[in-house]
Amino acid sequence: MAQQKKMVEEITSMDEDFAKWYTDVVKKAELIEYTSVKGCMVIRPYGYAIWENIQHILDSMFKATGHENVCMPMFIPESLLNKEKDHVEGFAPEVAWVTHGGSEKLEERLCVRPTSETLFCEHYANVVHSYRDLPKLYNQWVSVVRWEKTTRPFLRSREFLWQEGHTIHETAEEAQEETIRMLNVYAEFCEKYLAMPVVKGVKTAKERFAGAEDTYTIEALMHDGKALQSGTSHYFGDGFAKAFNILYSGRDNQQHHPFQTSWGMTTRLIGAVIMTHGDDNGLVLPPAVAPTQVIIVPIAAHKEGVLEKAEELRQKLSGICRVKADTSDNSAGWKFAEYEMKGVPLRLEIGPKDIEKNQCVIVRRDNREKIFVSLDELETKIPELLEAVRDGLYNKALERRAEMTFTATDMAELKDIADNKPGFIRAMWCGDRECEDKLKEEAGITSRCIPFEQEHLADTCVCCGKPAKHMLYWGKAY
Amino acid sequence: MAQQKKMVEEITSMDEDFAKWYTDVVKKAELIEYTSVKGCMVIRPYGYAIWENIQHILDSMFKATGHENVCMPMFIPESLLNKEKDHVEGFAPEVAWVTHGGSEKLEERLCVRPTSETLFCEHYANVVHSYRDLPKLYNQWVSVVRWEKTTRPFLRSREFLWQEGHTIHETAEEAQEETIRMLNVYAEFCEKYLAMPVVKGVKTAKERFAGAEDTYTIEALMHDGKALQSGTSHYFGDGFAKAFNILYSGRDNQQHHPFQTSWGMTTRLIGAVIMTHGDDNGLVLPPAVAPTQVIIVPIAAHKEGVLEKAEELRQKLSGICRVKADTSDNSAGWKFAEYEMKGVPLRLEIGPKDIEKNQCVIVRRDNREKIFVSLDELETKIPELLEAVRDGLYNKALERRAEMTFTATDMAELKDIADNKPGFIRAMWCGDRECEDKLKEEAGITSRCIPFEQEHLADTCVCCGKPAKHMLYWGKAY
Repeated sequence: MAQQKKMVEEITSMDEDFAKWYTDVVKKAELIEYTSVKGCMVIRPYGYAIWENIQHILDSMFKATGHENVCMPMFIPESLLNKEKDHVEGFAPEVAWVTHGGSEKLEERLCVRPTSETLFCEHYANVVHSYRDLPKLYNQWVSVVRWEKTTRPFLRSREFLWQEGHTIHETAEEAQEETIRMLNVYAEFCEKYLAMPVVKGVKTAKERFAGAEDTYTIEALMHDGKALQSGTSHYFGDGFAKAFNILYSGRDNQQHHPFQTSWGMTTRLIGAVIMTHGDDNGLVLPPAVAPTQVIIVPIAAHKEGVLEKAEELRQKLSGICRVKADTSDNSAGWKFAEYEMKGVPLRLEIGPKDIEKNQCVIVRRDNREKIFVSLDELETKIPELLEAVRDGLYNKALERRAEMTFTATDMAELKDIADNKPGFIRAMWCGDRECEDKLKEEAGITSRCIPFEQEHLADTCVCCGKPAKHMLYWGKAY
Repeated sequence: MAQQKKMVEEITSMDEDFAKWYTDVVKKAELIEYTSVKGCMVIRPYGYAIWENIQHILDSMFKATGHENVCMPMFIPESLLNKEKDHVEGFAPEVAWVTHGGSEKLEERLCVRPTSETLFCEHYANVVHSYRDLPKLYNQWVSVVRWEKTTRPFLRSREFLWQEGHTIHETAEEAQEETIRMLNVYAEFCEKYLAMPVVKGVKTAKERFAGAEDTYTIEALMHDGKALQSGTSHYFGDGFAKAFNILYSGRDNQQHHPFQTSWGMTTRLIGAVIMTHGDDNGLVLPPAVAPTQVIIVPIAAHKEGVLEKAEELRQKLSGICRVKADTSDNSAGWKFAEYEMKGVPLRLEIGPKDIEKNQCVIVRRDNREKIFVSLDELETKIPELLEAVRDGLYNKALERRAEMTFTATDMAELKDIADNKPGFIRAMWCGDRECEDKLKEEAGITSRCIPFEQEHLADTCVCCGKPAKHMLYWGKAY
């Protein structure tokens, strides 16, 4: 147990310093390692395996909704980036510029894609000619670069991995439906697979993606009460199509501009998982994305038959879950701490006494519950327990969000909450940008979204007292 | 049939202009589309689906041999690239340089990775401390950039997709074994799944990867008699470890430098598949990587029950292969040509007469053989036929390679072959760089490899007449 204590002591506690706790977990669970380029990280095998699981599930969901994967180049010529005015204004300040190929200066600078709308538009112009060519429902899994000043692993890095969906449609209605469809896919993914409740809504004009007519978002609440934008889906109208001169001949034999969307989720989701479910013992992983779902730890491993039994159970379970047996010569206590740190959902302990009784002990990572399970029932019990861990994590996160969601009807109340109570603040809003700016300035909060599920909290805007148009979620955000 | 003719006429024939045939196939089969950045292409859904199949199979083979996926940053600081002398000399002339982040000039230039040895080395130095940390068996799926002067889709592009394996070991022997192990994985993949025979061997010193002690290669022969290097595996010794100061404490409690390897395959493989199996009707895809393995074409689709039957068969087969039914209103002739162009291995035709007889017609893409199959036997016949297509493709390629592999024992003979007979040339070599340079200059050929399977063709070097050390494969290469 000495080893266990040592290990646990190495992490800063959440209450002491949440930011340091986060960094400790990210490093000690071996998710990432820093590099000599600020804001660019190595995603280590354990971190990357989480991403592979995320990719695998999301990719199936995209394909089930009719999308195809493609791959665009990573470079965007400056003139191409410049074609859509709002878009270039939003991104130009934070792109990395390639100016030389080998020893030769390039005729035109190329930026490393911060996002790929302009590349998709150039491609659409080449391949979309008739309404028969529509819709195109594309996605790509790539990395993008945004030259951020302050960086944090997964949450804000200069290079990050993501998927970007890009679609183009005959009508505005179809494109709008697609935008909402993919937001719903994102929300379902977060809630079902990451066990992370999200608020679905639309961003205010101020918070929109550069070039979008509407940006939809899912917002999650982290352990420390800060909000995390976890996925966005954008409706572009025909603005990009006009800027890039994309035309198709319609059913009426006339030329029309098509309508576009884009939507993205990133490795930021790994940060969201850490800060939603983690605790002072380290990572807590939702089973659907855990690289190892069950870790088998032999107890009194030197006793006859224990290692063999551990290996036998591993083989037995390998068809129904991602399972490993740690048969190394480290102490059981060290192993307990190690796999708690790594957030493995279930620990299966098997020792001589258990073998005698034809049972094992299973310990849930989410609530540390100890369960004795007959070895004959293992194959039905494990999937049930993995599901129970997912439900336990989801419900705990949902309860915490309920406890940390506050309502304000006037400025004094709002400022008091913003100063003293971390979490979401729900308040009415008149719809004016000025009030949004004022709340940011005076209370240090930003609008997260206008949630789809509206409530009438008051008649007037929390800020200016004019008639209210919407209920908004506000918060401090990552 | 007018449509079919039209379609076929659109492709240049192989004999007329092989390079143009290649470009036609790549475009008409909708594998890629050009962009405004020279040498950077859009990989379209059909092309990307081939790559996804390649990735899926290779990734399983890597994991089965104990490798884990990671992800390194895309940027390498200039000082890091400079650390290993041979390596930087090899790559610096062809890297893309990032000099600005937003509007600010960077303190140090960053290159976009042309390959990631230096990044892995920096990481190893951080995470490898003891022999207990070894080996590390890593792989990553990313894109890399090399600023080539002349570019061709898949074969030589400025950005390309690949996997790069990087491993680090306690002993030289282990690292050497790994190098050969992965070369064998590559060869197995090419022969079994791409139906493409390869020659395994080691590169001469002149053709080694920058920084490697040994570079192993698999070389394939294309339809036009040119060689294509299809995968390479490098043994680095402890050269990189010394340059990057990577040290581990050994079993003897002393500090040692570990030994490294790297190995890579790229989207070039798609070019190899096109040029190995393609014909004047377009692409011919090996079943293992074909996005659609069976295309169902309804005949006399307006007749009652035909479309329903086509859909019924599609559903029946969807569990055992990648199958689609084209129930569009295009003519059957157009569909025949279209899916021949796209290289779909098997075409299944079903019409009213077939339905009456409870049968269908299957046409193999590789040899156009027509087979009548009872609908009751379809589920056993289809996998057999897919296997037969793979074998047919492999054997045809093997025969062609045999026909196009020549032996030369003196310079006159060698020059005559090089001038008049496209293909591999086998010849003895003394081991001197001078003879290699001379053959390049005088016969326009380069050494492909010293094959593992040696034969004694003559006692003396084909070039200088000194005693021969090895039999070499020579050729003109992509």
